[in-house]
Amino acid sequence: MSDDPYGVDVVACKSRQQRLLAEMVEHGLEWVVLTRRESVQWLTGAYVGPLFAPAAAMNTEGRVTLVLPSRKTSLTVAADEVLPYEEKWCSTLRDEQRAASNTVMMSALPIKLRHVGGEWSQLGPDLLADCEGNVINIEPTIFRLRRQKDNDELRMLRRANDANRAMYKLAREIVEPGVNELDVYNELHAVAVQKLGEALTYFGQDFRSNARGGLPRDRKIEAGELYILDLGVGFRGYYSDNARTLAVGGEPSAKQVLAWERVSEVFPLVESTVRPGASCKQLFEEVQSLLDKSKPWVFNHHLGHGVGLAPHEGPHLNPSWDDTFAEGEFFTAEPGLYHEELRAGVRLEENYVVTATGCEKLTDYPLGL
Amino acid sequence: MSDDPYGVDVVACKSRQQRLLAEMVEHGLEWVVLTRRESVQWLTGAYVGPLFAPAAAMNTEGRVTLVLPSRKTSLTVAADEVLPYEEKWCSTLRDEQRAASNTVMMSALPIKLRHVGGEWSQLGPDLLADCEGNVINIEPTIFRLRRQKDNDELRMLRRANDANRAMYKLAREIVEPGVNELDVYNELHAVAVQKLGEALTYFGQDFRSNARGGLPRDRKIEAGELYILDLGVGFRGYYSDNARTLAVGGEPSAKQVLAWERVSEVFPLVESTVRPGASCKQLFEEVQSLLDKSKPWVFNHHLGHGVGLAPHEGPHLNPSWDDTFAEGEFFTAEPGLYHEELRAGVRLEENYVVTATGCEKLTDYPLGL
Repeated sequence: MSDDPYGVDVVACKSRQQRLLAEMVEHGLEWVVLTRRESVQWLTGAYVGPLFAPAAAMNTEGRVTLVLPSRKTSLTVAADEVLPYEEKWCSTLRDEQRAASNTVMMSALPIKLRHVGGEWSQLGPDLLADCEGNVINIEPTIFRLRRQKDNDELRMLRRANDANRAMYKLAREIVEPGVNELDVYNELHAVAVQKLGEALTYFGQDFRSNARGGLPRDRKIEAGELYILDLGVGFRGYYSDNARTLAVGGEPSAKQVLAWERVSEVFPLVESTVRPGASCKQLFEEVQSLLDKSKPWVFNHHLGHGVGLAPHEGPHLNPSWDDTFAEGEFFTAEPGLYHEELRAGVRLEENYVVTATGCEKLTDYPLGL
Repeated sequence: MSDDPYGVDVVACKSRQQRLLAEMVEHGLEWVVLTRRESVQWLTGAYVGPLFAPAAAMNTEGRVTLVLPSRKTSLTVAADEVLPYEEKWCSTLRDEQRAASNTVMMSALPIKLRHVGGEWSQLGPDLLADCEGNVINIEPTIFRLRRQKDNDELRMLRRANDANRAMYKLAREIVEPGVNELDVYNELHAVAVQKLGEALTYFGQDFRSNARGGLPRDRKIEAGELYILDLGVGFRGYYSDNARTLAVGGEPSAKQVLAWERVSEVFPLVESTVRPGASCKQLFEEVQSLLDKSKPWVFNHHLGHGVGLAPHEGPHLNPSWDDTFAEGEFFTAEPGLYHEELRAGVRLEENYVVTATGCEKLTDYPLGL
């Protein structure tokens, strides 16, 4: 066991491998070969960053082969075999890393392959070319399995939120008329790095005042505007995503306060509705109806989504999907109301985890304007 | 023409399309279909960031079809036809973006395809499944063409270096004993954002004192150490990469000064050697011989590489490749010497562009310790 409380949890990875194994049996698959970085990390714990091309394979005995950049093979991972591929030659990144990784993986797979699951968005024509049976796209299965977070993943997501907590606290100190959006962005980035004690693997979302969202502009914020800070970091591949709205100058208008109250009223509805088996789409529709009472202010985006190794995952609190909540899911709820007269709107975003009987809120930081 | 001097240069993109067209004729290809983000940007100017799955296709008449996320179709691009794919449903990113983009692209391609070039590391089994002739991997060709930078690309690379210039200037003000590596990292990030006036598309390389490299640690730097700052930003997809070494405390040892002098002597050799037709490998070997005279201090990494839409590109100043310099190439030269007694070494990295008769240095900022 590593001293690092956020080190890779091999036992938790193996429980994910067992869940994938059950799916393989159900689909009649003899092998699954994963080539998307998030999938490889999900299955084995190996985080390698965006410049590399790892791969992982598992057979029906649950044996896992992992192909990693040669300089990363000492990472703590959940795999029975770790094989290196040459990601660099004499320090220079190779253009053909994916092919090199695939070649190593092919050498570890049986010559005659039948009934394999692969990831179609990152497969390549070389990897399973000799497969004599079916190659099915396993991506939808992986995405479905990723919805349910294990304890190690919740630990990473909570840790990423430590950065968010520090960012909102600082924002309440520094946001005032005349401050430049770029400087707010930089100071929030800095406090997130200080809080986590390491460089982030992602930094983004919404940093514009008097706007619905977007990256920061070279622009001074003004008294009377609402400043939606929808903040996200990456902590070793895991994302955070929640939002607060601040009244620039500290004296929100009566309409701005009313909009904030209307948006805030969504959370009790979320908290009383969500439990395993509840419909995400129906929750979205109830919230849409509730917020539609505030016209001409509009709510015209999703209510929320899962977060994990991608910024958006299932479950989808969204009319375009028909998802059902299940225990262990980590999701955001981010109701908002927007209108020019609000300069330009309120969005509040909380994070929850679905429990056996309901949901638990994870974002305990102040919600006020 | 956009007011933005760094906006997409449609004419320059079209000249790249003509260069690719010449390669298609040579390979007997009827279509090229590009699915890697950097390739799509190189051909059409479309920068969409890491969360999306664009595609571009060109036929032998030079007609370009571009598939972009639906909310990005108003970007200025060099394409004859821009088709949207649904990257989100009601604000939520879809897991199956690559498949959605491929489906739109397939609908724009002829039903019967023969002799197509595709990018194998990002192709997917669906995209060219119905092709009746050969599908060749066009990636090596694209990487080769990318070595030669057009004026619009040099403009982007120079702009990215404006951030580096500002970072080294600030570093010389703030690096002193007792400063934390994380704080140096944060302040350099902040000044780069301020200089470019927008969020970076990348921020990285080496931020450790008394070490060869790596991301910053939660650690105070100490007098007498050498601090290698090998800095890189992303400016709308284009990378920067150069390095300076600072003596923490401002009083380098005689050995540290000597190592700096030995490393500095490499640049006159580079500048007198590089011209179209010169061997990159031979230059590497000459530098290796020169620096080997400083044993036990070691030089044991590449001498340099191209930079552009990837942090490492050709030409390779590296014994593992046998490249030849050509006019228009943008490359780094980054000699170094390392040893414990140097605490822990010196690396200096300059950028050059190959001209018709030699090379021009682009990094004019102070080189001293």
